[in-house]
Amino acid sequence: MAAEIVNPRSDSNTDQDGGAEPLDSFDPAFALHRGGKMAVQATVPIRDKDDLSLAYTPGVARVCTAIADQPDLVHDYTWKSSVVAVVTDGTAVLGLGDIGPEASLPVMEGKAILFKQFGGVDAVPIALATTDADEIVETVVRLAPSFGGVNLEDISAPRCFEIERKLQERLDIPVFHDDQHGTAVVTLAALRNAARLTGRSVGDLRAVISGAGAAGVAIAKMLVEAGIGDVAVADRKGVVSRERDDLTPVKRELAGFTNKAGLTGSLEEALSGADVFIGVSGGTVPEAAVASMAKGAFVFAMANPTPEVHPEIAHKYAAVVATGRSDFPNQINNVLAFPGIFAGALQVRASRITEGMKIAAAEALAAVVGDDLAADYVIPSPFDERVAPAVTAAVAAAARAEGVARR
Amino acid sequence: MAAEIVNPRSDSNTDQDGGAEPLDSFDPAFALHRGGKMAVQATVPIRDKDDLSLAYTPGVARVCTAIADQPDLVHDYTWKSSVVAVVTDGTAVLGLGDIGPEASLPVMEGKAILFKQFGGVDAVPIALATTDADEIVETVVRLAPSFGGVNLEDISAPRCFEIERKLQERLDIPVFHDDQHGTAVVTLAALRNAARLTGRSVGDLRAVISGAGAAGVAIAKMLVEAGIGDVAVADRKGVVSRERDDLTPVKRELAGFTNKAGLTGSLEEALSGADVFIGVSGGTVPEAAVASMAKGAFVFAMANPTPEVHPEIAHKYAAVVATGRSDFPNQINNVLAFPGIFAGALQVRASRITEGMKIAAAEALAAVVGDDLAADYVIPSPFDERVAPAVTAAVAAAARAEGVARR
Repeated sequence: MAAEIVNPRSDSNTDQDGGAEPLDSFDPAFALHRGGKMAVQATVPIRDKDDLSLAYTPGVARVCTAIADQPDLVHDYTWKSSVVAVVTDGTAVLGLGDIGPEASLPVMEGKAILFKQFGGVDAVPIALATTDADEIVETVVRLAPSFGGVNLEDISAPRCFEIERKLQERLDIPVFHDDQHGTAVVTLAALRNAARLTGRSVGDLRAVISGAGAAGVAIAKMLVEAGIGDVAVADRKGVVSRERDDLTPVKRELAGFTNKAGLTGSLEEALSGADVFIGVSGGTVPEAAVASMAKGAFVFAMANPTPEVHPEIAHKYAAVVATGRSDFPNQINNVLAFPGIFAGALQVRASRITEGMKIAAAEALAAVVGDDLAADYVIPSPFDERVAPAVTAAVAAAARAEGVARR
Repeated sequence: MAAEIVNPRSDSNTDQDGGAEPLDSFDPAFALHRGGKMAVQATVPIRDKDDLSLAYTPGVARVCTAIADQPDLVHDYTWKSSVVAVVTDGTAVLGLGDIGPEASLPVMEGKAILFKQFGGVDAVPIALATTDADEIVETVVRLAPSFGGVNLEDISAPRCFEIERKLQERLDIPVFHDDQHGTAVVTLAALRNAARLTGRSVGDLRAVISGAGAAGVAIAKMLVEAGIGDVAVADRKGVVSRERDDLTPVKRELAGFTNKAGLTGSLEEALSGADVFIGVSGGTVPEAAVASMAKGAFVFAMANPTPEVHPEIAHKYAAVVATGRSDFPNQINNVLAFPGIFAGALQVRASRITEGMKIAAAEALAAVVGDDLAADYVIPSPFDERVAPAVTAAVAAAARAEGVARR
């Protein structure tokens, strides 16, 4: 075959589109991104007409007919159960905000290759030209026959909650908003290990979360699910409590199951005496507020690229410090969770990803650390080869235990 | 990385889903299809955190920002301009008819890997859970930011015409219904070479097409575009003519630019004295009708798996015989056209695929045969490595000449 000769991406002559090449030489990120970061490959040979007669007509017709007669066979004889749609509308991309679908594509491709690299899961970037929640839902429902799962990505709150809920109601394949649940799973894993390290029980901890967006809401839910002593969530106007009359429906729900202590007032006030700080907001927390936390506190300042509390300051007061950055110890990185979670769910053809499967993922992730547990090692490295298999196995087992597995 | 360990498709234990394995051992097509025929791969390394910081955060954010500022850069720094969506609703799959989206997936995967193998073009199967023309259009418009082109596949007539037209009106990337235009391009190439072989001019030929579906309509248009002497199209009720009052809008349009001779009556009657028979119907043409054609006729009986006229019978009367089958000479196979057509269009970032680009593709395809032209060799083999580069170059050049290229 002459694939190299005609591959459209091999024609990287930039004379005609101008302006691109300077970016490549100034910044290695641009050079690396030229032509994109992913490709499709055939996993069966097409060397001659005999191959063609099996992989395509006439042989393929027998496979199609079998699936038409027995729909479940689509999982056996197509890539459906290996492939996840990475769906975005480009409204909440990294810290960049609403940059639109095209500009979000490099992140979605990145996500897709992380799925492949870390979980062996095929993934396809789908950046949508609509931000209407109902249109997004309808579109994904129509796409669903081709995919084994849907990873929602970088869709702004509060639409992300509604979109995920409606999609999961209508589809019998897993729908998972990684900005929510991936972050929550890894955070819980780190928290469990921090508690183990310091001889605490999760049930005795009081946590404060800065940020009531996708990640903050999901982390709060998961910590409650995991039996945290108490958790309060603060948005820009202060702690979310039943006293407030300015809450969106999602925050009103949040007020219903968090903040048992009935805190009101500012984030800084809530931090006084708190055991855990979890930052998913991007703001800055004053050093005095960190100093006011309980002795032996945990500070997880996950904003990227600038943590809410710089690790050097956090270390002055906290027993365990984690960030979202790869250049400090204890990186809370979603890539520790989503590849294995989807790999496990796809392996058993789960119809959804339950709370139990997420908790199992967090426990498996925490367990990888094992006896090497230390203040600067409460969470494994994304490049630890034990992570994805451990998460995959735990999620698959939990799916079977919870009755959502189909094999 | 532990990709092999956690790859969901590697767990091919069929004990739990039962009934699948027997298919694999009875029919090699099933064994080949197990787990699907395609995968995604990363084209950049992710070996360590330095790689991750370029391919993903924080490096990717700079690329996203650049695209947000200068939207055309999406073509340079993502796979958009390398990847085609292969879109179907599963309503007209091969000769199997309306088997639904899931059952169509093996064909769409097959198409995707042919795109890759023969054209170096990445392609993603998108089988939609709707057959409503407007919903299909809306869905594809919303998907379009992620793709460099749209190949419509196995969508039944007449919806396929409306869907293609509306999509091309709304999108600035190529939209191409291969069942129409791919077939037409290869047919025209074969016809040109048959004419050259027999010393005829296309303008002197009178053709009869059996079948007024997607392929028949597109072939008729293309033959008229290429200057055929006359062409009549027959559906199940006979020749499409202005006399008939039972025509759909598409066939009424067809009646307006075909059948200059004003033929009425049956396909068999129309074949009397005709120079060319083109079968895209799946019916059977009686030997007597073939015998009634002009001396030195061309019979292209392309129905699969059973040609409208068996080649042995056709050879008794015709100078050139072609079929849709790989086990006879002169196979009219779309794979000769679509990979190169999309590769050429993507290479120059064409906004659409014009008639001129399709004619150029047919000419380039015909020219590959060159001096080896013979009655059993009017069209090259799909495995002829010269085909895709020739079609790609011709289509790219035509796109530039026609002003639809963007680089």
